[in-house]
Amino acid sequence: MQPALIYASERRDTFVEELKEFLRIPSISTDEEYFEDVRRGADWLVDQLTRIGVDAAERCETGGHPIVLAEHRAGDELPTVLIYGHYDVQPPDPLELWTTPPFEPRVRDGKLYARGSCDDKGQLFMHVKAVESYLASGLPLPVNVKFLIEGEEESGSAHLRPFLERNASELDADVVLVSDTSMLGEGIPSITYGLRGIAYAEVQLKGPSRDLHSGVYGGAVENPVNVLARLIGNLHDEKHRVTIPGFYDRVRDLTDDERVAMRALPFDTRAWLNAVGAGGGRTESGYSVLEATWARPSLDVNGIWGGYQGPGAKTVLPSSAGAKISMRLVPDQRPDETASQLKQYFEANTPETTALTFRILHGGHPVLVDPGIPAMQAASDALEAVFGRTPAFIREGGTIPVVTDFKQILGLDTVLMGFGLNSDAIHSPNEHFGLDRFHQGIASSIRFLDAFGKRA
Amino acid sequence: MQPALIYASERRDTFVEELKEFLRIPSISTDEEYFEDVRRGADWLVDQLTRIGVDAAERCETGGHPIVLAEHRAGDELPTVLIYGHYDVQPPDPLELWTTPPFEPRVRDGKLYARGSCDDKGQLFMHVKAVESYLASGLPLPVNVKFLIEGEEESGSAHLRPFLERNASELDADVVLVSDTSMLGEGIPSITYGLRGIAYAEVQLKGPSRDLHSGVYGGAVENPVNVLARLIGNLHDEKHRVTIPGFYDRVRDLTDDERVAMRALPFDTRAWLNAVGAGGGRTESGYSVLEATWARPSLDVNGIWGGYQGPGAKTVLPSSAGAKISMRLVPDQRPDETASQLKQYFEANTPETTALTFRILHGGHPVLVDPGIPAMQAASDALEAVFGRTPAFIREGGTIPVVTDFKQILGLDTVLMGFGLNSDAIHSPNEHFGLDRFHQGIASSIRFLDAFGKRA
Repeated sequence: MQPALIYASERRDTFVEELKEFLRIPSISTDEEYFEDVRRGADWLVDQLTRIGVDAAERCETGGHPIVLAEHRAGDELPTVLIYGHYDVQPPDPLELWTTPPFEPRVRDGKLYARGSCDDKGQLFMHVKAVESYLASGLPLPVNVKFLIEGEEESGSAHLRPFLERNASELDADVVLVSDTSMLGEGIPSITYGLRGIAYAEVQLKGPSRDLHSGVYGGAVENPVNVLARLIGNLHDEKHRVTIPGFYDRVRDLTDDERVAMRALPFDTRAWLNAVGAGGGRTESGYSVLEATWARPSLDVNGIWGGYQGPGAKTVLPSSAGAKISMRLVPDQRPDETASQLKQYFEANTPETTALTFRILHGGHPVLVDPGIPAMQAASDALEAVFGRTPAFIREGGTIPVVTDFKQILGLDTVLMGFGLNSDAIHSPNEHFGLDRFHQGIASSIRFLDAFGKRA
Repeated sequence: MQPALIYASERRDTFVEELKEFLRIPSISTDEEYFEDVRRGADWLVDQLTRIGVDAAERCETGGHPIVLAEHRAGDELPTVLIYGHYDVQPPDPLELWTTPPFEPRVRDGKLYARGSCDDKGQLFMHVKAVESYLASGLPLPVNVKFLIEGEEESGSAHLRPFLERNASELDADVVLVSDTSMLGEGIPSITYGLRGIAYAEVQLKGPSRDLHSGVYGGAVENPVNVLARLIGNLHDEKHRVTIPGFYDRVRDLTDDERVAMRALPFDTRAWLNAVGAGGGRTESGYSVLEATWARPSLDVNGIWGGYQGPGAKTVLPSSAGAKISMRLVPDQRPDETASQLKQYFEANTPETTALTFRILHGGHPVLVDPGIPAMQAASDALEAVFGRTPAFIREGGTIPVVTDFKQILGLDTVLMGFGLNSDAIHSPNEHFGLDRFHQGIASSIRFLDAFGKRA
């Protein structure tokens, strides 16, 4: 493995330049205007994987954005690692808050700024470079490697599940490796063993058939914005608990051991909140910030709109209002059931004077992986060697629905070995990725493949 | 007065042709591209007033669009009527919805279609033609007449108030006469004796310093959209009353006589609501639609925004949220005080986790004119003679701030003798004005000047 580590070390600058090339492609999967750019992102990856010497790499059509599939065989007796990542990115708006444009990558203070630099192009690319490091330095790969890289992660992964179902045998492996999560803090290598799920919906309320003069009609005609505000406002009680009937029924409580372990983690709640200007924070009564984001469900309005949003005063009684609402779920909540509960809440409480449209946009199951399995231990060994300290086993508040799919469809556990930091501003303006972590990630991937080849 | 009525009757077609000429000028005050056209509108009026024999007419500069001022003296012993109107119009878009172009007036089925035909060129022109009818038939005017015709009514009347203050003595009169309101229904002559006021504010709530990932932070960081929704939702109770402390303290209750009179008016609530697709309506408990819009205050969100509004799902915890909120006021509410009460409500209920910005955008006082004063009775007599039925004394839910200005700055009551119908589509495509109402308006103006000369 040493020659691979040396190769990677000597190629640091080249790797960064190549990543920049990848980041220049605005592969925004949720916006149809970027349809062709998303395809370009897939083509770029196929070309890249072919160039580093992977046996086979192809762009697979899905009915939506393409999936990139690649495979490199090292030996039938060796275990197989399926590396998953995504080459699509979030929309970059609000554009005016970016110091440099989101698709013109720039290094400042050792950090690479661009949309996707951390989530997930940068982290995905580490594994591509790890495999290259073996192949280019003439070493046999210590495991068989498959790549599964999708282009719809930021817009709901609608075509991934059917793709897994259709290609289950081709995707046969021993474990899935994913780098799309964060570290607990700077310099603290972390393995994520739990993820929250999600249920995401869009609500529209329609009132009068057109925008009305608020003087002539105000006080006699129901205002759909007022109604929507009330319905949303009532979704939490004064303890910041979600009021939807049945919402907490399946929530698995934290064990006492887990609470103790969480409290022992080096986590500075105040610094974490201050970093995002969130003052004192606001959690469900009785739960710490870590407990609340890792092991308790939440409900957030992701967007709301209605009526006049321009400058000055327009005296309009709006004809409609809408909101995007998502809930983060913990074991053993079920996204479909929770979305239904939200729908029932709106149906039961929307007055007859407004017409409700409720659409479920997407869902993902919560996940818990046993930290004792060989692949988790291989990841632990790799990270410890690179960072010089035992990694923290953590959970994360976010959702990677594909992890559930891997378990359900392929029967595979997933190792979440992430190198992000909360300060990386993923999904926000000025997303960035520390180049030190990019290179540590490549070394960790090289070491993981080696360690898993021996342990499995 | 009879010769004046006969003259007007014989000149019906000429009057309509002249109005068409006026309507061909696209005097859109809110769009700078039409700056010169607005001035042409003022010049056309000065020319018109001069041609009909008014003593003095001039275009006055204001810093914005000009005001046309004219005066005709009939005798120092006679009362003076100040006729107010506006020669500017709303933008005509969406153009594609007009059957014939907005600035090419066309008569169809006895209705004159053009932007401004009803609001307010057509109604204003009635009074010009009434004065002409006296002068041309050799009669002395029964009152002194002043015209004050502005060109910025549709864009906020920014220069009118200072103009009134600068020219208060020149504008000295006994009453103001305005035709810029509507009739209760077809064939029902109406005098508007009450208008609601307004207090308009914008609220912004700032949470975290940037948009956050709703998975990583959801459940630990306060979401300003959730907070704003709750604050707005709590502004009404289940009886649809506004919950702001002190909001109703100054509200003058309807008298029993007023309620009886309102109920006797020929008003089809269901048809009125159905016309705007508002189903069953939604009023403060215990009040009819007419009572609620005419004599009760209301609170409407005019616009709301926050987070992601684009297509698809973005899992963001927004950093800020905002709303425009306006309240319609009735006597004796005060716009400044009510805006302060709303501000106090937000200050008292916004949690420490979010930062509040509250801006008052504008305000206007409610108006009630005593139907018993001589000018109101003169209007009533005039309308009864023309329409053959007692006019309805009505209120209107909207605000005409200039009426308050006339009271506050000039000390004058205003008679609102309007000839519009809700079906005239003012501010919308295919605005029109029934020619029967145009001619009835001229006769009503002739009779009003006569009656007020005798009564005052």
